[in-house]
Formats: sequence, C-alpha cells, structure tokens
Amino acid sequence: MVKVIIHGCNGNMGQVLSKHLQQDNQCQIVAGIDRSPNKYKNDYPVYKDIFDFEGNADVIIDFSNPYYLPGLLDYSIENNMPLVIATTGFSPKDIKDIENAAKNIPIFYSSNMSLGINVLIELVTKAIPTLSDSFDIEIIEKHHNQKADAPSGTAYMIANKINEAFKNTMEYVFGRYSKKEKRRKNEIGIHAVRGGTIVGEHSVIFAGQDETIEIKHSAFSKSIFAIGAIKAAKYIVNQENGLYDMNNLVASNNNNK
Amino acid sequence: MVKVIIHGCNGNMGQVLSKHLQQDNQCQIVAGIDRSPNKYKNDYPVYKDIFDFEGNADVIIDFSNPYYLPGLLDYSIENNMPLVIATTGFSPKDIKDIENAAKNIPIFYSSNMSLGINVLIELVTKAIPTLSDSFDIEIIEKHHNQKADAPSGTAYMIANKINEAFKNTMEYVFGRYSKKEKRRKNEIGIHAVRGGTIVGEHSVIFAGQDETIEIKHSAFSKSIFAIGAIKAAKYIVNQENGLYDMNNLVASNNNNK
Amino acid sequence: MVKVIIHGCNGNMGQVLSKHLQQDNQCQIVAGIDRSPNKYKNDYPVYKDIFDFEGNADVIIDFSNPYYLPGLLDYSIENNMPLVIATTGFSPKDIKDIENAAKNIPIFYSSNMSLGINVLIELVTKAIPTLSDSFDIEIIEKHHNQKADAPSGTAYMIANKINEAFKNTMEYVFGRYSKKEKRRKNEIGIHAVRGGTIVGEHSVIFAGQDETIEIKHSAFSKSIFAIGAIKAAKYIVNQENGLYDMNNLVASNNNNK
Amino acid sequence: MVKVIIHGCNGNMGQVLSKHLQQDNQCQIVAGIDRSPNKYKNDYPVYKDIFDFEGNADVIIDFSNPYYLPGLLDYSIENNMPLVIATTGFSPKDIKDIENAAKNIPIFYSSNMSLGINVLIELVTKAIPTLSDSFDIEIIEKHHNQKADAPSGTAYMIANKINEAFKNTMEYVFGRYSKKEKRRKNEIGIHAVRGGTIVGEHSVIFAGQDETIEIKHSAFSKSIFAIGAIKAAKYIVNQENGLYDMNNLVASNNNNK
Repeated sequence: MVKVIIHGCNGNMGQVLSKHLQQDNQCQIVAGIDRSPNKYKNDYPVYKDIFDFEGNADVIIDFSNPYYLPGLLDYSIENNMPLVIATTGFSPKDIKDIENAAKNIPIFYSSNMSLGINVLIELVTKAIPTLSDSFDIEIIEKHHNQKADAPSGTAYMIANKINEAFKNTMEYVFGRYSKKEKRRKNEIGIHAVRGGTIVGEHSVIFAGQDETIEIKHSAFSKSIFAIGAIKAAKYIVNQENGLYDMNNLVASNNNNK
Repeated sequence: MVKVIIHGCNGNMGQVLSKHLQQDNQCQIVAGIDRSPNKYKNDYPVYKDIFDFEGNADVIIDFSNPYYLPGLLDYSIENNMPLVIATTGFSPKDIKDIENAAKNIPIFYSSNMSLGINVLIELVTKAIPTLSDSFDIEIIEKHHNQKADAPSGTAYMIANKINEAFKNTMEYVFGRYSKKEKRRKNEIGIHAVRGGTIVGEHSVIFAGQDETIEIKHSAFSKSIFAIGAIKAAKYIVNQENGLYDMNNLVASNNNNK
Repeated sequence: MVKVIIHGCNGNMGQVLSKHLQQDNQCQIVAGIDRSPNKYKNDYPVYKDIFDFEGNADVIIDFSNPYYLPGLLDYSIENNMPLVIATTGFSPKDIKDIENAAKNIPIFYSSNMSLGINVLIELVTKAIPTLSDSFDIEIIEKHHNQKADAPSGTAYMIANKINEAFKNTMEYVFGRYSKKEKRRKNEIGIHAVRGGTIVGEHSVIFAGQDETIEIKHSAFSKSIFAIGAIKAAKYIVNQENGLYDMNNLVASNNNNK
Repeated sequence: MVKVIIHGCNGNMGQVLSKHLQQDNQCQIVAGIDRSPNKYKNDYPVYKDIFDFEGNADVIIDFSNPYYLPGLLDYSIENNMPLVIATTGFSPKDIKDIENAAKNIPIFYSSNMSLGINVLIELVTKAIPTLSDSFDIEIIEKHHNQKADAPSGTAYMIANKINEAFKNTMEYVFGRYSKKEKRRKNEIGIHAVRGGTIVGEHSVIFAGQDETIEIKHSAFSKSIFAIGAIKAAKYIVNQENGLYDMNNLVASNNNNK
C-alpha cells in the first residue's frame, strides 16, 4: 500500500486526484495539504501547511502552485520523501531548484502528466530518423474556447522535442497568411484551434510524397493527468535519488515486457 | 451528345479535362483552343485562337487564364454559346464583365468546380442557423508544400459563405500565438497546414458544449475539377441566359429527386 | 420561467439534467419523480409516483424507463401537460401509444436528444440527392468497451434515414471479411468500433471519384442529451398538440433566422 | 549509379516504378523483363525472360507475379545479384523458397513496400508495451470500392504484428453486430471501409480511460510502393547475404542519425 500526501488537494486537479486515489486499492491517502483546508469535505485530514502533518507517508503528489515549491522541496528533503510534481507554470529558477533537490530525493517531474501525450512524443521522436528527409511536420492542437494561451504548453513541448531531434534547426510557424511564400523545409507549422469545451487534442502530421502519417492524442477529461500522476507515484517510490519524467516510466514499461 | 470546346486544352487542367471528356459517352470534344496548340498530341483539332474555329459546338469549358477572358466572352456572345468558366484568379473587373456577359448567354462560373466542396459549403450553411448560438466555428485546410498562397482560395470561399450567414460580423483569425487572449465569439479561426504532396483537404469544425460536428472534404486528384466542369457543361446547355454556379446545380439535383 | 417536472430524476441522466436545469435561469424544477425518491439529496421535492405531485408545472421531461410510460401519458393528458420523452428502448406498441397520446397533448420524442446528432442526420439527408449517384456511403461509430449493443441505436437511426432517402433499397453490411466480393452499390457499411471510455462518435463518409466528404459528430459527455432535452422543453411548451422531434426544432431554428 | 533490372516492367506497378527510376539520378534502368515485352514503349530494352538479358546490373526489383518466382530466384543466385521482391500473393511454399535463396544472395522482401506503412507498424509495436495494460486496440482500413479482398493484406500485416507483441493471444473481430456482448479485452476489431476511389488508409486506435491515441497512414497514389522499392534497392546492394525487410531499412536509418 502506497501512502500518499496530496499537496494542493482542494484545487480542481487535487479533487480529481482524490477520487482516483480512493478507487485505487494499491494507494491510500494519508493527508491533504491546501491553503483552504476546509473548502471541501474530504475523507482524509487536510492541513494548511505540509509541515503541520506529522504522520508517515511514502510519496507526495503535488498539484498546487509554483508559489509553494520552496516549502514543498524543503519538507521532502528533510523527510527524505519521494515527490511527484504535476504543477505547471514554473520559472527557469524553479526548474533549477527542482533539479538541485533531485540530488537528495527521487523527484518525478513532467509538464504533462498524461501517459498518452508522453507516448505520442516518444512515437514522434521515434519516427523522425526515418521520415525526416522527405516528410514535412505540422502540429494541430485543439482546446476549449476559455483557454487563454495559444499554442498549448503541450504543443510547445512536442515541437521542442521534434526540434531537438533536428538539432534545433527548425523554425515554428504559427499562422500562414500570405500570397506568395511557399513552405520552407525547416518549418514546423503549429496550429491552435479553439472552440466549445474541447478538453484537448494534439496531432502531429508527417506529410511526404503521396503519403501522410498522423499521430493523434485526444483527451476526454482531466482524469488522465490524475491517472498519470498515480502511475508516477508508484514508480518513483522505488527509484534512487534523481530527476525522472514520463520517458523513464515509459522506458521502464518497455524493458519489463 | 454535347459538343464541347476546351478553352485552354493544353494546360494541366485542360489535359485532365480531355481525358475525362473522352471517357464520357454523352460528350464529344469538337475543338481545343490553346496559345501553344502543338504542345500535346490531342485527338481533336487545336486552334491558337477561339475565333479560328468555324465548326459547331454546344458549350465551351474554359480552364485557361484571365488574360483570355475578353475574347472568350466576345466569341460566346457572338455565337450565342453557353459557357463554363473554371479559370481562377479573376479581378473584380473581370467578374463584372462575366456578370454583364451573362445577360446575353448562360454562364456557369464557380471559383471551385469540385462538386464535393460545393456540397460542403451547402451543408455548412445549412448547419449555421441551428448551431450558431452555441457553437464556435473553425476551418482547417491542408495542401502540398509547393502551394504559394495561404489560406487557400477555397478556405476563403467557405469562410466568406459562413460570414454572410452571420451578416458579415465575423472576424478571421489566421494564427493564434498569444499568452493571454481567449477566443472571442465572433472569430473564425482559419488554419493552413502545408506538407508533402497533399492535394487538398478542407474541414469545418463546429465546437459546442461537450460535442463537435466536423464536415470535411478531401480531394485525391485534380480530376474532381474536371468532373465538376463536365457536370456544369451538361447543366448549362439547358439553361436560360444568366449567371449560374454550383449552388444552382446542387439545388437542381435536390429538386429532381 | 418554465416550470419543469423531471420524470426519472434519480437515474444517471435525471441527475445530469438536474444540474443543467439548475444552471438555466429560464427554467425551474418544481418536482422530481423517481421510484427511489430518497436515493439522492435533491433541491426539489421528489415523489414516488407522478400522480402524487399536486402543484403546477409547464412541462415534463422524461428520462425514466419504458415501464413507466402508460402512467406518464395518462398524467400528461389528464393535466394537459406538454411532454418531452427522452427515454429509449420503447417497443413498437409503446411508440403507437405515444403517437396516440400526441393527439391530445404536444409531445416531443426523439431516440437521440443530442442537437448535434440531429444536425448530422439533417446534413446527411441534405447531401444525398446531390451525392447519391456517384458516392458510396459508410458509417463508422465508436463507443466505450462497456457498451453491450452494436452497432449503436444512433448508428441505426442514421442508417435508416439514409435508407429512407433511397426508398429503402439499401442493404446494411456489418463486417467485411471476404476474399473475393467487391462492394455493391446498394451497401451501407456500418462499423462499430469499441474501446476505452469513448463517449460516442458517429461519422458518415461519402466516398466518390477522387474525393470524399465526411460528416462527423463527437460527444464528450452525457450533458449533450440534457442540453437537448431542455431545448426541447422550451420548444414544446409553445406548440399545438401533436408529435414533434428534433427535426421540428432544427427547422424552427432555420425559419427564425 | 545503381543499375536496375525491372522484373515485371509492363505491369501497373512496373510502369510507375519506371517513371520514378527515370527521375532518380542515382539509378539507371538497364533492362526490363515482361511476358508482354512490347506492351509499352520503354526507354530501355525489354526481354521476355530474365535469362535473355546478358548485360550487367546491380539489383533486380520485382513487381511481377508469384508464377515467375522460381526463375527469378535461379537467375539471381546464378548471377549473385541482390534482389528486391515487391510482388504480393505468395504461398507459404514461395516464402520458404525466398528464405532459402536468401542464404546465397541479399534479398529484400516486404508485403508492403510503403515506407509509411512500415513506420506505422514500427510505431504501433513501440507503443504496445506502455499501452497494452489499459488500452483497447482497433484497426480501421479504407479502400476503393473495386477492392475484392477485405480486410486488406496490410491490415492483417498490422494485426499480426500487434498479435505477436501479445504472444498471439489476441482474437480478430471483423464486424460487431450484436445486442448483448461487450467487447472482450483480447479483441482486435478490424473494420474494412469500402468506397469511391480511396487509395488506402490504415488507422490503429489505442483507446484507454479518457484518452485515445491514433496512428494513421494515408496513401494518395501507388507511387509510394515504387519509392519504397527504390529505397530498398539502394539499401540491399550494400548488404550481406540474408533476408531483409522494411524494419531493417527503418532501423538502419535510426542508427545513422
């Protein structure tokens, strides 16, 4: 039984995570941490600050806010506790702090906790050596009409991985609106469709001579981030100190089978 | 048997049209017109100028160049001959000339001769009254990497028809690249994907609360424009003087069944 | 303010409907009816039998069970109350009863309450006269792996409407598995994909010479049926006696704009 | 310069291959072999039997017929000549003969010469270890209405590779048409859509909890098989004796980059 602390338990994702953990018979929630501890009735004790918790736990899953990162890292190091960080919006300085902390404890950090998105990235990366010579690459992402940023962080994450495979020689193109310019070979077109309540879709298109390959991920609810975080928690409790992400988890699946 | 003159017979589309007409047992090619009359060996006589042709015909199909429009209209009016204009790239002045000529002869003119694209536009227009309140509309088009203009003329044609249905209150958005702006209700996002040798795909997405409707047209070769032009030719030979387009042809199908 | 009785309020769809009605400031829930009246805490009185309710209402929305149909129709006729029937699984005899009842009260009945699915059917029907000569029609539907029936009731509903347009000359083909038979012209292929938790996707493909048109509906939650039922309720309260379905609602939208 | 013999040069694929080889400045056609040597005017000498050719060559590309396999293998072994076999429809005995011949010469044999299809299979295989626990797998393929076999040979090729990854525990389901059976975990649904002139589309769907991943290949012309065969020819001329397929070629691309 993996004993879990939910850091940020009364946020949207914290509540989704609660539900999924309660249905998982290999996990047990021992505490929640939230700045508004009384916002919801939870079946586990909720503390305002992680240092207020005095029980035992195996791992912390964090769906809170970059603001709480320093305290979270201090607590985890002090208590030698594995940590899954699923919060987004970190500054480069924050990322540095996470990397440093990972020298003392095992930390799992990914800017997208969905297993599917990380598989998509793995497949796209895998396809590039064979297809790069003669195929053009374009990305289409679709999200709901309330999303404020465009393209999505995940679309950038995908594009950056593609760009790495091309030794960072690619250029991102965000909207074609022209009368006379042909596509250049080193473009990655990134298209952000917005409408309705679409949860999230990311598609990578390889277009070659008389054939295309498309790799598409569709998310139907935020549950996928909770499910991914739980998989990460079960994985990180058995790891050495260091920084891990979904690639490690995916690779470990590949090796075990 | 419909006797056809191909105006612009030695261009790309003229040759595709030739093949399709030769396989159509309701049609007969009586002459081709082309500024390079000897470029290909055709099974019909080819003249440099339409006024050089002295035989009988029922209809002209034009896949040439806006440059030749004045002569073409003169000849058609003088000979009282129905005309299918499938050439693209006309100026507003050219369009006026076509409209004026249509007072004296039946003219079929469409900026996209594909039956499928015109059905797509009909369906999109049909869906708007029911969906406009609570659905957002986005357009994705995909073409090969040698296409110089973006978005495609057909994407504009679709967007303009949608905009008309909204009394021209919509705004076109060509590339979302922002950190803090949500989609506004009166946007039509238009996304131009470019890659490989994709012949042409146009997709209109209606995205509402927890449901989407997508209407998508995929073209696999330029034959569809020839096929549409032949249908237009068979239709226009039976019409009164006036200007016709694919909507008329589609509507006549609907009424006959 | 439209006063609504929810018939079957403690079922899955009844609860989804409750949430949506509570957020709709043109509607008010005056009562719920359910055989298990205490199953949930609702913000409105719940009765075991509709005849136990003695207050005023404008319309009943029924998401219950065919078993309760006779009582429901009796009550509605006796109280002269418009009725929206969103329950599925009726026998031909039940349908007859509904038709008869509709002579005395306005009844809205549809085997799929989603606005989107009904728009899809309208568009497919609209496309057939133009495309029927030279296009083949296939249907793909996708649902979660717990769905017991295949193809879906909605896929049949779509296929039957297509078949009607062909004067019932079409044949349904449910799985191609052969070494030597070509597709016949009068086939409609119907393909039932099952996997994961897919809520529901229905796609109609028109495949012709070198072009295809696809009309696709994707549902992301059961909310769409509640939303459709509320639209139906607002519509039916203003109608004469008679039987109505989504086509009437869609058509009324078309006329008002 | 790679000197190529086209075996079966006057068949459909032989002619497509001719065009592509003529445009490839690293290749030169030294001879064609065909039972109807005078069917087309080719820019290279055509012989009725491969033993009639007495010049030099580096590689044979075979797009003929299983009937000619024995002679082809004899000639290739006798002349120590690398061989690309792109013919389909072989019996198990034929395959054995190919395997035996490959002890004496390098042979490249694949039942689908398209680079894209082989990349699709590689990606699907790659995704299985991570996704197999909690995702269902379904295959949709689409082809023109003149195709006699269903599902396509390529769909079987994909399904068989998936099945291998599951140690052949999966069952193929070709058409769901039932009132009460849920999908079983060990099913692979295979759906054969037929319509119009669709050249070929193969899609593999992984459907999990609230997310799906789809890997889709679309072919727009038969050129892709010629392009793949030319890549294979350039690859096989540098290999040791043995049997090779697209996986080897794809893997060699991966290693070189």
